[in-house]
Amino acid sequence: MKIHNRHYRSIWRKSEEPGIWQVLDQRRLPFEVAAVDLETVQDFEWAIRDMVVRGAPLIGATAAYGVCAAIREAQDDRDFDGKLAWYVERLRATRPTAVDLFKAVDRVLEGVKSLPDYEKWTAAVRIADALVEESAAQCRAIGETGLPLIREINRKKGGEPVNILTHCNAGWLACIDYGTATAPIYLAHDAGIPVHVWVDETRPRNQGAGLTAFELGQHGVPHTVITDNAGGLLMQKGLVDLAIVGTDRTTREGDVANKIGTYLKALAAFDNEVPFYVAAPSTSIDWEIRDGLAEISIEERSEDEVRFVVGLDGTAIRRVEIMPADSPALNYGFDITPAKLVTGLITERGICAASEDGLLSLYPEMAADAIV
Amino acid sequence: MKIHNRHYRSIWRKSEEPGIWQVLDQRRLPFEVAAVDLETVQDFEWAIRDMVVRGAPLIGATAAYGVCAAIREAQDDRDFDGKLAWYVERLRATRPTAVDLFKAVDRVLEGVKSLPDYEKWTAAVRIADALVEESAAQCRAIGETGLPLIREINRKKGGEPVNILTHCNAGWLACIDYGTATAPIYLAHDAGIPVHVWVDETRPRNQGAGLTAFELGQHGVPHTVITDNAGGLLMQKGLVDLAIVGTDRTTREGDVANKIGTYLKALAAFDNEVPFYVAAPSTSIDWEIRDGLAEISIEERSEDEVRFVVGLDGTAIRRVEIMPADSPALNYGFDITPAKLVTGLITERGICAASEDGLLSLYPEMAADAIV
Repeated sequence: MKIHNRHYRSIWRKSEEPGIWQVLDQRRLPFEVAAVDLETVQDFEWAIRDMVVRGAPLIGATAAYGVCAAIREAQDDRDFDGKLAWYVERLRATRPTAVDLFKAVDRVLEGVKSLPDYEKWTAAVRIADALVEESAAQCRAIGETGLPLIREINRKKGGEPVNILTHCNAGWLACIDYGTATAPIYLAHDAGIPVHVWVDETRPRNQGAGLTAFELGQHGVPHTVITDNAGGLLMQKGLVDLAIVGTDRTTREGDVANKIGTYLKALAAFDNEVPFYVAAPSTSIDWEIRDGLAEISIEERSEDEVRFVVGLDGTAIRRVEIMPADSPALNYGFDITPAKLVTGLITERGICAASEDGLLSLYPEMAADAIV
Repeated sequence: MKIHNRHYRSIWRKSEEPGIWQVLDQRRLPFEVAAVDLETVQDFEWAIRDMVVRGAPLIGATAAYGVCAAIREAQDDRDFDGKLAWYVERLRATRPTAVDLFKAVDRVLEGVKSLPDYEKWTAAVRIADALVEESAAQCRAIGETGLPLIREINRKKGGEPVNILTHCNAGWLACIDYGTATAPIYLAHDAGIPVHVWVDETRPRNQGAGLTAFELGQHGVPHTVITDNAGGLLMQKGLVDLAIVGTDRTTREGDVANKIGTYLKALAAFDNEVPFYVAAPSTSIDWEIRDGLAEISIEERSEDEVRFVVGLDGTAIRRVEIMPADSPALNYGFDITPAKLVTGLITERGICAASEDGLLSLYPEMAADAIV
């Protein structure tokens, strides 16, 4: 998607010849657009650990190129295997709960393990590139699947802009391109369908106000930032035609774990008969679990994310404390939207009901190992 | 209620002899506890307009004493009536939509108008004092009405702490003492019933994180600040026993206009069978309207409240910008919680269903002028 009218992905080669990759320093967005070079294993490790990059697909891609860098650096060592293993452990330790990270690392390692050492670097880059292309294609497919929903609402409204509410950042900055929840929006906009996005600011980390608003603005998509409290009223007033959110984990029966606050918007959508869709790439579906509330443990994060707000003061990025120093705060990372509140899941294979039957209609290969 | 172990009201005489009143500068809370003197009409005017004081009952009380000051100052003028009228107009213009302000000003003026000028000052202070006492007594009555709800939950939980969620600041800082939504909580705490309050931070102005947390902490009431997104999950997890919120306006049929975001918590409470009560002083009931969504216009406030967050950076109070400078924001002040989601209204006369029948059972005198 675009920044300053130039097309970007969230990670790219600095030059034609592989060796140095670049990413945007997302810690400084939306206040400053700064690309940083990633070349050594240490660079990649730092970028993931310090949240220069975030979002599961982008973390996976960064880790994949990190393994490439590890292979190249290990080749200078007498003990190639030992050195590579050591580097890889450091990459794995950056974000211990990110499943995309582990999968990406394993895929690159697996793909090169039977090759002679001198072929490993080139092969690793090819594998990482393929992973990145697949990830972008998956998001694009979600966009194409979701696009008719927006087109149809626009038609029903006689060509008036379609108002879409989203929560947090399930955008291209978290992925490689397009994003998940934002993919149908970008494709609609690029197809000339008028859209307007209500962007939940998404406390505590404000990924909506900071990242989603930035993304949409740079790509030229009309949008308005609102507090997390406001979406219910907008639905009451008929100002929301459609809600699309992302998902961190989707159960076999269609329950959705997503950024805290998603559930509240789903309740309001249900109460006001606003269609509520979840952009759910197949990688987000956990076929092993059924009941989101009972089976998904909710990450508790640092209370400092609630206590402090980060923003721009003139040209400096500062954090301010918004509550009494001696009051405690609690910070759960996500909540569970039960399947009953979800109008449909937008996957790369099509849209389905948020239910086991719905998901199996698109993923029949998962029926065999059904859990009873 | 207490600050630093000393009992406070939100407005008080500086010394035994009337003439100078004091209020806390609420713009600096919770970061600094600073009392400011209000003596001249200009002081009172400034305090209301610049939001040194906020909350309808406190604005009313401040305006009432402001009229006292106006009377005293006008007595130095040859044209007493003209000067007083001019001062009063200035007071009225401070917050043009605050009905409590107009009512308070009128009550003091009405009470002194037939008195000789030299008796007006003493009488005005007496009337303003009476208004303040009534306001505090009304809040205390709401507390006494709501207290049994908390006591009963505590009994059912075998003495375990009662977890109460509240939104925004319907606390004593907005009133004279006790607050409305907080009154049952303070009375329960003072009666030795263990309570713990989940405090919604309440973006955009963070009156929860800033004021409610401060109030509760200073009075020694256990509490935890959460983002506005978190309450739904807490209810899903069974961590909320009761929700109590305030109201800006309550319709004849029990719809509630309150701070934006209230509706989302009411939906979550309903979905999780958590009792959802609204502390509704009779002054908040608008007997002339029935349908909150259709008949209450929602105030749209400055988008800067969304764009900027105010907090403490070291010892300085700063504001930081949390979103792209070229993205727009929208800022509605409140939303409508339909009566169907409200378990009950806590009024100074008792608790009733959020319905016309419920309200008329407590206010039978309002049945006569029923609107059909």
